[in-house]
Amino acid sequence: MAATGFHSADELNALLPGTLPGLLGLQITGHEPGRLDAALDVRPDLLAPNGYLHAATVVGLADTACGLATRALLPEGATGFTTIELKTNFLGTARDGRIEVAATNAHAGRSTQVWDAVVTLARSGKTIALFRCTQSVLWPR
Amino acid sequence: MAATGFHSADELNALLPGTLPGLLGLQITGHEPGRLDAALDVRPDLLAPNGYLHAATVVGLADTACGLATRALLPEGATGFTTIELKTNFLGTARDGRIEVAATNAHAGRSTQVWDAVVTLARSGKTIALFRCTQSVLWPR
Amino acid sequence: MAATGFHSADELNALLPGTLPGLLGLQITGHEPGRLDAALDVRPDLLAPNGYLHAATVVGLADTACGLATRALLPEGATGFTTIELKTNFLGTARDGRIEVAATNAHAGRSTQVWDAVVTLARSGKTIALFRCTQSVLWPR
Amino acid sequence: MAATGFHSADELNALLPGTLPGLLGLQITGHEPGRLDAALDVRPDLLAPNGYLHAATVVGLADTACGLATRALLPEGATGFTTIELKTNFLGTARDGRIEVAATNAHAGRSTQVWDAVVTLARSGKTIALFRCTQSVLWPR
Repeated sequence: MAATGFHSADELNALLPGTLPGLLGLQITGHEPGRLDAALDVRPDLLAPNGYLHAATVVGLADTACGLATRALLPEGATGFTTIELKTNFLGTARDGRIEVAATNAHAGRSTQVWDAVVTLARSGKTIALFRCTQSVLWPR
Repeated sequence: MAATGFHSADELNALLPGTLPGLLGLQITGHEPGRLDAALDVRPDLLAPNGYLHAATVVGLADTACGLATRALLPEGATGFTTIELKTNFLGTARDGRIEVAATNAHAGRSTQVWDAVVTLARSGKTIALFRCTQSVLWPR
Repeated sequence: MAATGFHSADELNALLPGTLPGLLGLQITGHEPGRLDAALDVRPDLLAPNGYLHAATVVGLADTACGLATRALLPEGATGFTTIELKTNFLGTARDGRIEVAATNAHAGRSTQVWDAVVTLARSGKTIALFRCTQSVLWPR
Repeated sequence: MAATGFHSADELNALLPGTLPGLLGLQITGHEPGRLDAALDVRPDLLAPNGYLHAATVVGLADTACGLATRALLPEGATGFTTIELKTNFLGTARDGRIEVAATNAHAGRSTQVWDAVVTLARSGKTIALFRCTQSVLWPR
């Protein structure tokens, strides 16, 4: 896959088997430049020992959505990107059901991108988490 | 398991099968009040589609370590806790090998606890990530 | 002033002289429950030594806006609130001109509130910073 | 002042009058590469309207300390740096007295630096806040 350029939801889904997003059961449900939607079905082995959604499941959904959407907004000549920081505020939880994420671009520059993601519980629309991350744009040395 | 109180590394490890930490292959390697150590072996299905450690694998290791250590410092009468926010800075990555986390308590109050976690690559000691989170202490209504 | 309840922009502006928001020249320009607007004029002594807007000036504007708006959404019986964490991503800067903030509520619960604030440069509408914070709700012991 | 290179506490203090750190009364009390100490005396106009230390006063102290220390660790050829994100957890407060900060480097790379700062109340040694930020290293285009 080229370092930069747009890929459809189907093309992105084809990258996931055998990776962490695949292990979590994540599916990309929509992609346009600057916006990506994804979802996963909560299973017992995505929960914390206390029986509620594990923070890392939520982060896995949100960070994957932002990361897969980053490439389409990279400037020409960039060789890739890497997440340098992420922050999550947790507002709700779930024990089962489908959780969805909408990732939207907040900044797309030559050195960094900033993405926001909102994770919601599909059956109620209730917000589970607010996520924000910074992607560092990589250039040839 | 009681809502509060100290549990040994062995007791904590017994809670993990069937949960996300179990899915990630996380093992608790040490626990004393205010400090918990854990580790996992990087596998292909813990990586991102770009072939490097997924941010959520790192968060899964760090957040689990902090969460499991929170209970031992809860004040008497508390009924539990929940992660309300977490922040991670990523300083390095890996494609294989063992990654370790040391979680240490920075604040243990009646309404919140704050925990720091440092994730390192075992073979080199190199820092992979700096993690900090806030746990909200739950009380009977 | 009562611990809870709504106060108009004028009532809030009357609280600022002699405090840090007063020192920064901050003015509340609008308030309805769940949304507060404020602004300040950039002056040389609000800059960093490098001649650009100091991060703390931006945080001062954003955190004040969120804090002053928190009270109106406190549940009855609460005795106050305190900022327990804040996060800012900086997307732009300025050397002069007016900067504005819009603070909007993302969560208003019994134990915490989460607020988002966007800081922009008035003359261009360009985003200077994205800010998010958690307020802890205080209760009688 | 050159874009890179080490400056003593005295040289750094000479930069502060007329800037926000000067307005806050901040003084650099020590500097060696990778570590900078500073302090300020809490005054009424550094407080929030509720009579306690304003979050932005704490951020002003911590971010200034990290920023002034960044330059000494810049790689040769860099033209400067800018704070791209900061996170603060507040663990305590004060109404008066001296607050101190110790900023220590956690990462110094070619594209970013990460700094930690701990703010304490001088008279008790009690922790007021834990601060972490990312500085982006600027290069000639």
